[in-house]
Amino acid sequence: MITANNPAIDQAQITKLLDHWATAIRARDIDARMSNYAPNVHLFDVVEPLQYVGAEAVRQRAANWLSSFDGPLAFEMHDLRIASDSDVAFSHSLNHVSGTKTDGQKLDMWWRVTICFRKMYDTWMVTHEHNSVPFNPESGKASLDLKP
Amino acid sequence: MITANNPAIDQAQITKLLDHWATAIRARDIDARMSNYAPNVHLFDVVEPLQYVGAEAVRQRAANWLSSFDGPLAFEMHDLRIASDSDVAFSHSLNHVSGTKTDGQKLDMWWRVTICFRKMYDTWMVTHEHNSVPFNPESGKASLDLKP
Repeated sequence: MITANNPAIDQAQITKLLDHWATAIRARDIDARMSNYAPNVHLFDVVEPLQYVGAEAVRQRAANWLSSFDGPLAFEMHDLRIASDSDVAFSHSLNHVSGTKTDGQKLDMWWRVTICFRKMYDTWMVTHEHNSVPFNPESGKASLDLKP
Repeated sequence: MITANNPAIDQAQITKLLDHWATAIRARDIDARMSNYAPNVHLFDVVEPLQYVGAEAVRQRAANWLSSFDGPLAFEMHDLRIASDSDVAFSHSLNHVSGTKTDGQKLDMWWRVTICFRKMYDTWMVTHEHNSVPFNPESGKASLDLKP
């Protein structure tokens, strides 16, 4: 197969997609947050279970998470790296969120994010996403207070 | 840029690389395990810290892990998916390991793996790897006993 490839355009499109998601998270807008997921996406998320398969399962998980907060969220991506070819791309970053849960608890957390993209009908779609925090092997606890 | 792309060959090369790593893990062979890491690799691992940057840091972490076991390891990749274009690729899978630690403790664990590749001088090199387990939000504990 011979393909024409413009990395600058591809990376700009992916950056725009991630910025769109960031805006959606800050506004807790589930419809905007769900843009660009492939129907058969495989999500490895910060919390159980091992994986979520399919856009509907991902939507349910994202909706539960966004509705667990009261008011807008502060959200940023740091150390973002993007690699793209004509039809396959990936990104990774360290993301930060802070906000107030509906039970009044404050959340202020960094986590690791890897996103994998396929271009489908000229649009970058996410077929795989991996969000996690590491754990401390001595306590067995998830490490929710690490900073880069 | 115009590139020739043969997905079947690329996917066969990546499968061979992952099989080579699997053999290295079973044999606890750190040199074979470290093949195909790019010098500037970013690793998000199962345990702290948030990230390891550079092949030397990744080697140290892998060596510590492999040497924490006594005897060979049982290791498999399940639900492996690979997507590749001419110069960029990614894979994800659910991996399983079991073995005996040097302190006699048995380990039998599933975790999530995402691997991101760039082709450099005709060889697939890993520029990013993300290993994790999720956690249980009620206990705050890493979920080390989940099964697919």
